Amino acid sequence: MAASGDIEALIEMMARLPGLGPRSARRAVLHLIRKRARLLQPLAEQMAAVAATARECINCGNIGTAELCEICTDSRRASGQICVVEEVADLWAMERAGVFKGRYHVLGGTLSALDAVGPEDLRIPRLIDRLGEEAVSEVILALNATVDGQTTAHYLADEIGARAEVTSLAQGVPVGGELDYLDDGTISAALKARKKV
Amino acid sequence: MAASGDIEALIEMMARLPGLGPRSARRAVLHLIRKRARLLQPLAEQMAAVAATARECINCGNIGTAELCEICTDSRRASGQICVVEEVADLWAMERAGVFKGRYHVLGGTLSALDAVGPEDLRIPRLIDRLGEEAVSEVILALNATVDGQTTAHYLADEIGARAEVTSLAQGVPVGGELDYLDDGTISAALKARKKV
Repeated sequence: MAASGDIEALIEMMARLPGLGPRSARRAVLHLIRKRARLLQPLAEQMAAVAATARECINCGNIGTAELCEICTDSRRASGQICVVEEVADLWAMERAGVFKGRYHVLGGTLSALDAVGPEDLRIPRLIDRLGEEAVSEVILALNATVDGQTTAHYLADEIGARAEVTSLAQGVPVGGELDYLDDGTISAALKARKKV
Repeated sequence: MAASGDIEALIEMMARLPGLGPRSARRAVLHLIRKRARLLQPLAEQMAAVAATARECINCGNIGTAELCEICTDSRRASGQICVVEEVADLWAMERAGVFKGRYHVLGGTLSALDAVGPEDLRIPRLIDRLGEEAVSEVILALNATVDGQTTAHYLADEIGARAEVTSLAQGVPVGGELDYLDDGTISAALKARKKV
């Protein structure tokens, strides 16, 4: 390679990011070097800052910069509702929608017999503890509509059902979705859950 | 957003990289934070190192860590051949092919009447200087087969033709290419440049 060792090492590190391969990593690094004062230097500093401060909230598993995340410390969000999601990315997606005003609980994955992931490997014991500590009236399961996600939802409903009301996101036709492009399972779920107009 | 200001700022910076958008930047940053000790911290350090040391070779425009790049300082590459490319990425592509053993000259773009890019805006004056300074017998034009690339090639051939032999990469059927999927221009160029078997 014509690039020097340092640059080559940077390209290899960037190529390991999800969404980037060797070719796009090279393009990104060249772009960064071309604008090194305005882009590469600030990005390096920002990464170092996040690497030093980012941590998981000990209560809900969200990522923040303190022991408790901004949502767990915000008393306006003590609505008695906990929304259970698989990953932090799902929490961010819920927040972008901007309709949920309660708190979250990030499991950190799903139960999986195949990968030998049991309740103790996820943040499930902590969720059960929270039901006792916080005044929780409703647990909303916002897990992915995959086999593992639904298995986990059933398990949680069994475990928690006696202590709080357990609900889950509605399944149906996505907004803007066309019937012709939907799978049979979604159409069948939407039909079963049909509502009076 | 649920992410703290620092993390949000990092996502915004990453989203500006070519090949990454807001969604993939979020995924990349979450991935980095999850592996912050093994990935984010080293990446921040590597970026800072490159930001501090990367610079353009004053002779050919390649990116390296010294005033003269590794190719310009390598006496084994004083073959009397200079390969002219548009961007550093093209130089890297040539080096990956591993067949050219001479030196390079990175123009930094192409002439463009539309964008008001003239010879003085590119590294063309320096190329002409090099013809006098180094014992150059052949200038190989490895410019993109675009309108601007070919315009630049014609301009360079006119300027340099009297001082050194000017050649350009062959046009034809790419290796592994299927005639049925090639455009008419390529087929026509390949037919014109046909060779005895």
